[in-house]
Amino acid sequence: MVISRSLHCLRCARPAEGFDGCRTCAAEGIGVNTMPPLADLGGVDLTGYPGGPWGLPSALPVSGPPVTLGEGNTPLIRLRNDQDRDGADGPAGEVRLKHEGGNPTGSHKDRAMAVGVAAAVAAGADTVVAASSGNAGAAAAAYAARAGLRCVVFTNEAVPAGLRAQIDALGAERVVHPGTTADRNAAMARAVQEPGWYPLTSYSAPSPGGNPYANEGYKSVAYELARDLAGRRLDTVVVPTSRADLLAGIGRGFRELAAAGLIAREPRLVAAEPAAAAPFTAALRHPDRADQERTRVAAGPTVAFSLGEERPCWQGLDALWRSGGTAVAVNDEAISAEHRRLAAEGLLLEPSSAVGVAVARAQARTSGALVVAIGTATGLKGLGG
Amino acid sequence: MVISRSLHCLRCARPAEGFDGCRTCAAEGIGVNTMPPLADLGGVDLTGYPGGPWGLPSALPVSGPPVTLGEGNTPLIRLRNDQDRDGADGPAGEVRLKHEGGNPTGSHKDRAMAVGVAAAVAAGADTVVAASSGNAGAAAAAYAARAGLRCVVFTNEAVPAGLRAQIDALGAERVVHPGTTADRNAAMARAVQEPGWYPLTSYSAPSPGGNPYANEGYKSVAYELARDLAGRRLDTVVVPTSRADLLAGIGRGFRELAAAGLIAREPRLVAAEPAAAAPFTAALRHPDRADQERTRVAAGPTVAFSLGEERPCWQGLDALWRSGGTAVAVNDEAISAEHRRLAAEGLLLEPSSAVGVAVARAQARTSGALVVAIGTATGLKGLGG
Repeated sequence: MVISRSLHCLRCARPAEGFDGCRTCAAEGIGVNTMPPLADLGGVDLTGYPGGPWGLPSALPVSGPPVTLGEGNTPLIRLRNDQDRDGADGPAGEVRLKHEGGNPTGSHKDRAMAVGVAAAVAAGADTVVAASSGNAGAAAAAYAARAGLRCVVFTNEAVPAGLRAQIDALGAERVVHPGTTADRNAAMARAVQEPGWYPLTSYSAPSPGGNPYANEGYKSVAYELARDLAGRRLDTVVVPTSRADLLAGIGRGFRELAAAGLIAREPRLVAAEPAAAAPFTAALRHPDRADQERTRVAAGPTVAFSLGEERPCWQGLDALWRSGGTAVAVNDEAISAEHRRLAAEGLLLEPSSAVGVAVARAQARTSGALVVAIGTATGLKGLGG
Repeated sequence: MVISRSLHCLRCARPAEGFDGCRTCAAEGIGVNTMPPLADLGGVDLTGYPGGPWGLPSALPVSGPPVTLGEGNTPLIRLRNDQDRDGADGPAGEVRLKHEGGNPTGSHKDRAMAVGVAAAVAAGADTVVAASSGNAGAAAAAYAARAGLRCVVFTNEAVPAGLRAQIDALGAERVVHPGTTADRNAAMARAVQEPGWYPLTSYSAPSPGGNPYANEGYKSVAYELARDLAGRRLDTVVVPTSRADLLAGIGRGFRELAAAGLIAREPRLVAAEPAAAAPFTAALRHPDRADQERTRVAAGPTVAFSLGEERPCWQGLDALWRSGGTAVAVNDEAISAEHRRLAAEGLLLEPSSAVGVAVARAQARTSGALVVAIGTATGLKGLGG
């Protein structure tokens, strides 16, 4: 197995090694990832694309036998629109839910960890490490198990019982760090440097976002949408956003598709955040991009427990800028109301997913167009806990 | 929406109405379902089949707008084989897991309830009712919510906490019947007769198996396997079996595919049962089919809590006879060991799914051929409960 190692900073274009983002930009207070070049999708026929990251291996920076548990190819479900419900006049638009809870461990993180663990195997690692309060840890545990690697998950005490049990059942070693995020990051940095564990999540500040190779797995969401909506104009994609790994990955996928002529135009991307922790929403209030990049907010607790950052990762801003998108914050009351509304439509997702759907409904109402909301994870993990 | 109502008994061919199976055969002590005719798949191109029951609506006895939450199209995951693990000599065969936990409510029941609730809508019902100690109740609740119908779930006290919470969160009314199965059946029969609730599961004895229209949704498992394994010879499909709704439905799907020339031959079907409740395994020990049909065993508790019947539903036996298959019982120790082994490969399923995988590994070892195990449900519902 071979890894393309030509990582470069997305903002300043400097080449980089390692997984702690661009240190030059970090010194300016800006968290930005280092990534491989975009893939060339010329000649790809999407009608034959079987879905998932490994359905289009040439688009990945890791080659060789895939590490897979059948991730991707998640359903795209039409939601009831406000017109159906309220009998309102005018075009209500159409909202579809891309239900990532259908992935093997129940979240979108599977797309990333499938590729990230393959990169770890290619790097010769025998242990992978992830810092996570939930879904990423469960996905890391599952894919490490699949590849026969040891997995250590650094968590805090806020991990819900169902997620804790999932991580444990999948054989990962769960290490609870009662200290600050900085303490946890420092412990993870030591593990990466000394025993040489392979990091599947980031461990520096300001956060650059996740492992670059892993994040390339998210491009497959865009490929699947392009395949499944062939011939329809997809106006907007709304993504529940914390560090914007998923948002930025989807944006890269659409850029590749547009460059190869596989879609006519890239959809607008919208970051959906909980109001308690909404750095992208705060950033876009500044007229000047230099101020946007350096935004910092207080991050408080929210029912959307898997979301919450103080700073906008740069590649998330870049994805919004390039696509003419925006960021919208939703308060906990509206998140809970949307969570209940989804259940009343038969869909049980984690509360973070409701953040995106609430924003998508509003976007569809305004535009009258087709809007996709990414449902990031199943609600099953939160039950009985 | 139109329903084809030409139900007939699969055993004696008498036409029938209603959802309590063939009363003539029941009077002989044999539980057998009444079903519509097989569909004609002539002219179907499986390469364009998008998966799920509604991906091939002409094969369903219910027409009209689908009731869907994106069910079906579940992944087919290659498991590590014994040769990989033990370095054993000789052909170890290949086991693939069809992971039904990827369905919207986390189990194969979604395929049935999608079609069953559409049939309820077509019948003009405003309330559906299901007797279930778990996954079927959750699926009924979700699809009823999707269609805007009221859902009542009759359960017993043994329902795990996660499943109870799922049923409640999806807005169903859960009625706990502390009495015997006979008491619960009697209550459900009254609800079907008097308020006219639409039954999504059976309520007579001996059990005929589930709602005939709903059960047609399971045929899509066979269609997906035929599409995904095109060009490969699928030797055996192992199905965790209780009332054999899934087994019989998969068998019907393969018969339709073979009749239309879409597969060269039907795979062997194998019923995998917990040793604590293994009527099919007991039945096949009798040389005479008349004795097989009338088998009755004691059903005890098992870690595979969603399985367990006293009698083999006739259509399950028929599926085994027609395909040259068999039934195999697995004791709780082996079920738990396989459950752990799957987790060590990154796959968290409910214990009932491990029953099928354990049998599939043995079948593959013996035959050296390609064996598919149906993984009936996710393990996420059992966590933190």
